[in-house]
Amino acid sequence: MHRLSEREWLAYKQKNKDRARMLISCEDRAGIVAAVSNFLFAQGANIVQSDQYTTDPETGRFFMRIEFDLVNLADRLEGLKDAFWPIAENYGMEWYLVEAKKRKKVAIFVSKEDHCLLELLWRWKSGELHADIAVVISNHEDMRETVESFGIPYHCIPVTKENKAEAEEAQLAAAQGVDLIILARYMQILSPRFLEDYAMRIINIHHSFLPAFVGAKPYEQAYRRGVKLIGATAHYVTEELDAGPIIEQDVQRVSHQEDVEMLKQLGRQVERTVLARAVGWHLEDRVLEYGNKTIVFP
Amino acid sequence: MHRLSEREWLAYKQKNKDRARMLISCEDRAGIVAAVSNFLFAQGANIVQSDQYTTDPETGRFFMRIEFDLVNLADRLEGLKDAFWPIAENYGMEWYLVEAKKRKKVAIFVSKEDHCLLELLWRWKSGELHADIAVVISNHEDMRETVESFGIPYHCIPVTKENKAEAEEAQLAAAQGVDLIILARYMQILSPRFLEDYAMRIINIHHSFLPAFVGAKPYEQAYRRGVKLIGATAHYVTEELDAGPIIEQDVQRVSHQEDVEMLKQLGRQVERTVLARAVGWHLEDRVLEYGNKTIVFP
Amino acid sequence: MHRLSEREWLAYKQKNKDRARMLISCEDRAGIVAAVSNFLFAQGANIVQSDQYTTDPETGRFFMRIEFDLVNLADRLEGLKDAFWPIAENYGMEWYLVEAKKRKKVAIFVSKEDHCLLELLWRWKSGELHADIAVVISNHEDMRETVESFGIPYHCIPVTKENKAEAEEAQLAAAQGVDLIILARYMQILSPRFLEDYAMRIINIHHSFLPAFVGAKPYEQAYRRGVKLIGATAHYVTEELDAGPIIEQDVQRVSHQEDVEMLKQLGRQVERTVLARAVGWHLEDRVLEYGNKTIVFP
Amino acid sequence: MHRLSEREWLAYKQKNKDRARMLISCEDRAGIVAAVSNFLFAQGANIVQSDQYTTDPETGRFFMRIEFDLVNLADRLEGLKDAFWPIAENYGMEWYLVEAKKRKKVAIFVSKEDHCLLELLWRWKSGELHADIAVVISNHEDMRETVESFGIPYHCIPVTKENKAEAEEAQLAAAQGVDLIILARYMQILSPRFLEDYAMRIINIHHSFLPAFVGAKPYEQAYRRGVKLIGATAHYVTEELDAGPIIEQDVQRVSHQEDVEMLKQLGRQVERTVLARAVGWHLEDRVLEYGNKTIVFP
Repeated sequence: MHRLSEREWLAYKQKNKDRARMLISCEDRAGIVAAVSNFLFAQGANIVQSDQYTTDPETGRFFMRIEFDLVNLADRLEGLKDAFWPIAENYGMEWYLVEAKKRKKVAIFVSKEDHCLLELLWRWKSGELHADIAVVISNHEDMRETVESFGIPYHCIPVTKENKAEAEEAQLAAAQGVDLIILARYMQILSPRFLEDYAMRIINIHHSFLPAFVGAKPYEQAYRRGVKLIGATAHYVTEELDAGPIIEQDVQRVSHQEDVEMLKQLGRQVERTVLARAVGWHLEDRVLEYGNKTIVFP
Repeated sequence: MHRLSEREWLAYKQKNKDRARMLISCEDRAGIVAAVSNFLFAQGANIVQSDQYTTDPETGRFFMRIEFDLVNLADRLEGLKDAFWPIAENYGMEWYLVEAKKRKKVAIFVSKEDHCLLELLWRWKSGELHADIAVVISNHEDMRETVESFGIPYHCIPVTKENKAEAEEAQLAAAQGVDLIILARYMQILSPRFLEDYAMRIINIHHSFLPAFVGAKPYEQAYRRGVKLIGATAHYVTEELDAGPIIEQDVQRVSHQEDVEMLKQLGRQVERTVLARAVGWHLEDRVLEYGNKTIVFP
Repeated sequence: MHRLSEREWLAYKQKNKDRARMLISCEDRAGIVAAVSNFLFAQGANIVQSDQYTTDPETGRFFMRIEFDLVNLADRLEGLKDAFWPIAENYGMEWYLVEAKKRKKVAIFVSKEDHCLLELLWRWKSGELHADIAVVISNHEDMRETVESFGIPYHCIPVTKENKAEAEEAQLAAAQGVDLIILARYMQILSPRFLEDYAMRIINIHHSFLPAFVGAKPYEQAYRRGVKLIGATAHYVTEELDAGPIIEQDVQRVSHQEDVEMLKQLGRQVERTVLARAVGWHLEDRVLEYGNKTIVFP
Repeated sequence: MHRLSEREWLAYKQKNKDRARMLISCEDRAGIVAAVSNFLFAQGANIVQSDQYTTDPETGRFFMRIEFDLVNLADRLEGLKDAFWPIAENYGMEWYLVEAKKRKKVAIFVSKEDHCLLELLWRWKSGELHADIAVVISNHEDMRETVESFGIPYHCIPVTKENKAEAEEAQLAAAQGVDLIILARYMQILSPRFLEDYAMRIINIHHSFLPAFVGAKPYEQAYRRGVKLIGATAHYVTEELDAGPIIEQDVQRVSHQEDVEMLKQLGRQVERTVLARAVGWHLEDRVLEYGNKTIVFP
């Protein structure tokens, strides 16, 4: 399958060749914006976009996302980081500085349902998903042919009650070095240890309803209650199942005419859109996490 | 306050002067549509719109909504009903036949929050809500001036733990003869006896989230979880609190920037829209109830 | 690439094995619904869903869509049609009767942009698009590899000013016998003769804005005007370019932050969703055309 | 009619008692953010939110919106402005600094349709619209009673071809000193001179479709074309009719079932929502204008 994305990607790289992104969070305090912008000005950077948000003035937490251009960014990045350390230390900042054109490496986990996986592959192939898909990992063989036809390695690692620990070892090995794990309808629970390794770097997608239906067969429950909206939520994975910080949500209108199968089909459409949006924002370094919430910068 | 609605209402009445609406539900069986349409044809009626839905072919339940025109409908309505009885009996139908131009009588219950009440009053005044608002009943005095300025009677019936039974008696007396009760942010629970009197004729509105937040202060919980959508659900009231058949739902997009107050304000906007839509559909006899679901005919 | 759709399709066929769909339009007149439903009852059919709409009572036009089950439908279909002719003639009906499980044959026309094509292929492969894609026809070679990887024949028929007539001959030959042509971003204008052959059986997709921007580079115009919504319209193709009966429309929210490239990318997302929805409704025989409008039955 | 808003407004004032908003636009240049944030830091201000956008790095235009808290803001505002002048001059800034708690004065213009007016009055009364409605001006008497029942002065200034100039004089006198004029379905064209006085401070609302329908009776045209979405656009008024910078747009789904009257009714619902949102953003100083576009800060 030929790569449509090459031209798009070259255009993207050209546009972003000296573009950096910086994410900062710390306790709020007067002077932070001044300190950061003075630093960038002194380095010769030109701020292209900057957004800042404080949870609660004076006692709250401060969040900032900056995009700036700096001539010869690639060569100067390490020096820039070194120079910023004193400021970061002074304000007790958590921070992150990255070239915009650097593609993140991602691993996609999938079980048997292909709709979310295919949406990601499709956007990747069309150049809309700015990432390198290093590997697709599954507990089943079903998606091998599809994935490999995109030229992407496929690891099938079956998971049973007995081999859970070794299976996770194998997964971690296969995903070695990735920046983000996407659970594209991966139906296995990950262990606390796994989650710790990838804290706030695992994105999951699941169906959502108003109200939520607890327990098995949620679409059947939603059908019986006659809901008029079905939705999906993309969130970072934390130890409490399906309760991590929400990145994105959306809904689709339904009526009494849709049977359970149609509800599921429409649910799949929402899931793939919501997951792709959440992943896109993460890859553009737009999402910061705080408490059990996210700040999604525009 | 002058009545803008008079002209609109006259146009509506003129357009609908010989228009009837018929709702039917029964066990599905071959020949129902033929029997009903033969009957109407024989009576000289012209079917303007008809929609039909079967939950499950052969073993399911059949639902039908018909709008038809019949010359001199008002004079002929009772005769029409008498003539239909044998067919209804034959098929074991629950059915309902009404003049489209007949305005239903409604009572609105409200506590202290005015947003849903005002939306209904506003649509009523502009001629968009085809109903007679017979009375507004509240457990507080707060809305009296507003309601009376629309020329609508206002009954303040305080409710306490001690007087609950008598208060409901007074409410039932004040609402005597109404076709529909709208709980426009009425914060008291109605007794089973009250609900029985108005089965499927009480519409309530409440906030909804994906997922739902159980317990007190839902907006605070939604804020802490960082939801990206807040919504509202309008439903018929049944004994199980907030679990009756859903008529309509909608959502509004929010972000990390909205504080709890803003979430509540946006929630109020969704609530008033969703309630007004659900009430409008009920008044146009578009909603049928089955199991714990609704059929909302287009 | 293995076929995921097989299982889905078998389930669909099983569910619809004796299901028929009937579309009727004629001048409105009392007794039509009775005549049709008597006929179906006499034949032993069970009406599963029926929707009816009249543009304007008494002087208007009548439209009806019926789904019914009839034992051994496949064997009885021709007899059913023969038996219906006298009724159809009596009321001057245009009508159409088809097995629900019969897959329509479609041809997809594409130029260089792949987003709409891929959405259709993707839904087809997942069993959501109930059609046989007989052929993909393009004026360029670009999509060959992609299309053939789905096991679908690809015809590249270059179109120039000089060879336009022959090219259309070749297209008509390649599309021989299809029920529907989908223009999935096909950037050539079809001749009146071509359109006549496929009247109301060619669906096109194009971008739409509020307000519309006439002339070249509409996304650039929309960007300069700072629109907050971009949309797409799927419609049947008629001689007046982009002015045929609308089947479906939708929009996507944008802001000042999106540059022209981002607007186009978001526009592509809307286009593929809207086209897929419109095609799905057409394949389920939900769309009737009248004047320059469509009736889309629920 | 009692004022529900008092409590809400007090809470708002308390929360915003020392809160300022600053809007800046100028040619982009390195160091702007540093200069502004240094200034605010030196003054003892704490930046609560700041958003910045550059149309095109290096050659483009820079836009910034800052919210900050400063102890005793009211007393210090003039001194703050004086101190900022040198920086503003150095960078060639257009800028604007205002207390968040200061309510803007608005005049609402209306003709005979009341839906947009009532939405604004309703939000104002409930404390959601942070403005003082100084006056409602109309070319008709129809809304007097409604407006006066809210305790707001009503000026009826009839407009004819002959008296247009004097009428505008009277309007300008009645609107003397307002910060914003809202055309809430005001059906008269304002003269260039009038527009100049209130450049980017007049907001209009009008219906919008995909595509736009030029000429008279747009709803009738939209009905004949069978559109599936109807919308509304709120924009600043410029000399070219209905072509000023767009602030907000939204749409509502419709079907073949809605007749022209229903389309208009649904159009009114969209119009009032879109206008209220646009006005709210303007009042919170979120909207900047550039070329023929707006920057709407989140």
